[in-house]
Amino acid sequence: MFRKKKQRVDPLIQHLMAVVGEKNVLYRREDLVAYECDGFTLCRGEARAVVFPANTEEVAAVVRLLNRENIPFIARGAGTGLSGGATPLGGEVIVSLVKMKKLLQVDFENRIAVVQPGYVNLKLTQSIAGEGYYYAPDPSSQSACTIGGNVAENAGGAHCLKYGVTTNHILGAEVVLPDGKVIRLGEDGIPDLPGYDLLGLLTGSEGTLGIITEITVRILKTPEAKQTILAYFDDVEEGSQAVSDIISAGIVPAALEMMDQTAIEAVESANFPVGHPLDVQALLLIEVDGIAAEVREQAKEIVEVCRRRNVREVKVARDEKEAAAWWANRKTGFGAMGAISPDYLVQDGVIPRSTLPEVLKKIREISQDTGLRIANIFHAGDGNLHPLILFDERKPGEKERALEAGSRCLKVCADVGGSITGEHGVGIEKKEEMRFIFTDEEIEAQLRIRDVFNSKNLLNPDKLFPKPGRCAEVKKEIKERKLAEV
Amino acid sequence: MFRKKKQRVDPLIQHLMAVVGEKNVLYRREDLVAYECDGFTLCRGEARAVVFPANTEEVAAVVRLLNRENIPFIARGAGTGLSGGATPLGGEVIVSLVKMKKLLQVDFENRIAVVQPGYVNLKLTQSIAGEGYYYAPDPSSQSACTIGGNVAENAGGAHCLKYGVTTNHILGAEVVLPDGKVIRLGEDGIPDLPGYDLLGLLTGSEGTLGIITEITVRILKTPEAKQTILAYFDDVEEGSQAVSDIISAGIVPAALEMMDQTAIEAVESANFPVGHPLDVQALLLIEVDGIAAEVREQAKEIVEVCRRRNVREVKVARDEKEAAAWWANRKTGFGAMGAISPDYLVQDGVIPRSTLPEVLKKIREISQDTGLRIANIFHAGDGNLHPLILFDERKPGEKERALEAGSRCLKVCADVGGSITGEHGVGIEKKEEMRFIFTDEEIEAQLRIRDVFNSKNLLNPDKLFPKPGRCAEVKKEIKERKLAEV
Repeated sequence: MFRKKKQRVDPLIQHLMAVVGEKNVLYRREDLVAYECDGFTLCRGEARAVVFPANTEEVAAVVRLLNRENIPFIARGAGTGLSGGATPLGGEVIVSLVKMKKLLQVDFENRIAVVQPGYVNLKLTQSIAGEGYYYAPDPSSQSACTIGGNVAENAGGAHCLKYGVTTNHILGAEVVLPDGKVIRLGEDGIPDLPGYDLLGLLTGSEGTLGIITEITVRILKTPEAKQTILAYFDDVEEGSQAVSDIISAGIVPAALEMMDQTAIEAVESANFPVGHPLDVQALLLIEVDGIAAEVREQAKEIVEVCRRRNVREVKVARDEKEAAAWWANRKTGFGAMGAISPDYLVQDGVIPRSTLPEVLKKIREISQDTGLRIANIFHAGDGNLHPLILFDERKPGEKERALEAGSRCLKVCADVGGSITGEHGVGIEKKEEMRFIFTDEEIEAQLRIRDVFNSKNLLNPDKLFPKPGRCAEVKKEIKERKLAEV
Repeated sequence: MFRKKKQRVDPLIQHLMAVVGEKNVLYRREDLVAYECDGFTLCRGEARAVVFPANTEEVAAVVRLLNRENIPFIARGAGTGLSGGATPLGGEVIVSLVKMKKLLQVDFENRIAVVQPGYVNLKLTQSIAGEGYYYAPDPSSQSACTIGGNVAENAGGAHCLKYGVTTNHILGAEVVLPDGKVIRLGEDGIPDLPGYDLLGLLTGSEGTLGIITEITVRILKTPEAKQTILAYFDDVEEGSQAVSDIISAGIVPAALEMMDQTAIEAVESANFPVGHPLDVQALLLIEVDGIAAEVREQAKEIVEVCRRRNVREVKVARDEKEAAAWWANRKTGFGAMGAISPDYLVQDGVIPRSTLPEVLKKIREISQDTGLRIANIFHAGDGNLHPLILFDERKPGEKERALEAGSRCLKVCADVGGSITGEHGVGIEKKEEMRFIFTDEEIEAQLRIRDVFNSKNLLNPDKLFPKPGRCAEVKKEIKERKLAEV
């Protein structure tokens, strides 16, 4: 009896092993722990197995098997997502793309590169920098995150103000559909194909329409010159106005980042302090790039704009080393919160640029209401806010209050005509908040699109959209929340 | 009897009149003639009626009526499209948007404008130029074409090399779905909403998914300086190489246009001759824009690149007046063909930039094969070719040979990894050529998307996609064509 029991292995696991090889399937409890969540750690679930296919054919074979057996499944890259898009809810098979990590082709003349989905974002720029090229989308996690994951989430980054988010840099993809069929979307190097823009539809679909197995991206010529400007403000509103003034002056900086006092306290307590004064209310970090003459002129103009807005101090980086230190300090951002708080929740809202002062004021009110500190680090030029809600999970009720504060921040963004996510996606985290910006009809139209590709809802189920049927309930909840805010 | 007959008016017309008013419905044969085709004049059909709604509510009411009665219908702007997207095939009701032509809002701080679909493209730039702003997409027909039509076709233009096509400038839309429901896509000023990119899906869907009734567009700051460079080459290949060299040098011109000898002959015979020598084989017209220092430096570099490619003559425009004359001459382009040929057919293919010399050679071979002159005017920087096939409809068989030559040009583009349309759309004209670049599976996926929105296929039926079921036949045809080419 004992021997017999030991031999009984889940037949599904055996089938998966037959496709990708025994070593490329994880199914033991202790091996699955690492796949319980992605970068959104507040929600966890257990997968049934994790498989590591080596190529498109193996992905397609795995998907055909899972589709036939009606087993739900999820594609996963590096697992750096911040909204739970790659988190299992229980029982899914995770299709990890990390072994498909080759750079397949670089064509400098037509300015394209072809990569496998598990290829790490930063490696592309590192591989082509010697020839004077780079890949523009630069999420903060770029040293770990994969380009496949970037496409699924339509990832952004500090430099998306001037260069656009992932969707602006993707020219083609090979995709395994949820039934195991393989299609190609887009033509290498041809940005605007006739018919419907299925490539655009796939980008940012958060892993619900297909599994990407190959990607053609646009590469850009490295700008001749760069310049970084740092400005300290004693007043958040003056800093916000400076942001608007810079854009209104016709300058499109490569990056235009803002941090508030709490965020400055955190980054100065973390790994790369650079001596920012701890009493300033807002800090702007601005990068301009282009040809040398243009960059000099724009840096000068930005300094003048800041001075007209009562800046306490504004300076242009003396050299590349100083600029790199300022950026390293900024990029510790989210992680740095650990230096001043046991736990934190990062949110990701978008607002029309002109509403920045008003929205920051409302976020301060939410902080006062809930008794939780909220730091703000954000891509100010795009109006893409990242309120960081600081809390202590050990204190009863604080996690719930943090989630509530996060949701209220998103409501503020939605109410001024903005959005509930700029670059982190909806995933599990913000499903119900989709109702802040979409009507039932609009959500229904999106679900019908999902049904076209993912008719059995096996691929990344229960992500991205609010639960059907719960509408009335959630509307009541939102209404109550609103009343509570009044 | 006679009186009775006279009174019998089509009840559908009466219903339409009840919705939009008697004056806003055309139904007499003589009134319908003007709506028999759009800018693609080789195919004509008769509509059942043309209605002119005044607002979204009227559009929705008309659509609800037509949907209920199962009457096919087509949205139409200025009718300047070049692939027959707004052409009736027989019996459709045309919903003309030309009376919905207001500029509803301009918000300089957030850099957006809101327009009705019938608002003329060029008027937007004219309205905001005084404040130092402009709207980037600039189809050659911009003085007549409407922004609603631009969205439907995802229109391009000479300046799309640097600034992108229409889809890159659309931030939101109000849409009447084929069942009469009204939805909003995108949020004013927020480029990247969560969920599927339905706005991107709608853009370029050639009027098959919904009728656009309001559009939010991005407006840009007018560049500080511009400079136009003109270069004459004795060799087409040298000219093509100069195009690649300019891009490889890291310059992204605002526009990079090329004309071949036949095209030069035409524009010099038309309304705005500027004295181009008639014996040059290729002409490049290049515009750079940005801040003054950058523009000067780039113009200098372009001149040097051209010299390295054995340019016969290269010059920078002395002043705005000279630049404007060169551009006016270029913009007579397609129409100018009338000066050297009774009829012409313009095609619209896209190729990877590096294949330009090879493709131009093949187009010359098609010209020799068919005995028809082919002029080339094109957006060389984007690899967007416009072969203009010159013919005389009065000569038996010439029209058919011209259509055949056009299709063969598109096949050449598809074979080098390009596309069958860059900015003119598929419409009626290129439906079967869709098979050059899409598999049955890929076309099927697109038709399933159409079904989500346009389940009865009443909205712009029989456009954009090849006829289902004709696949085997057309494949045979393509194969025969290929054999004929060998």
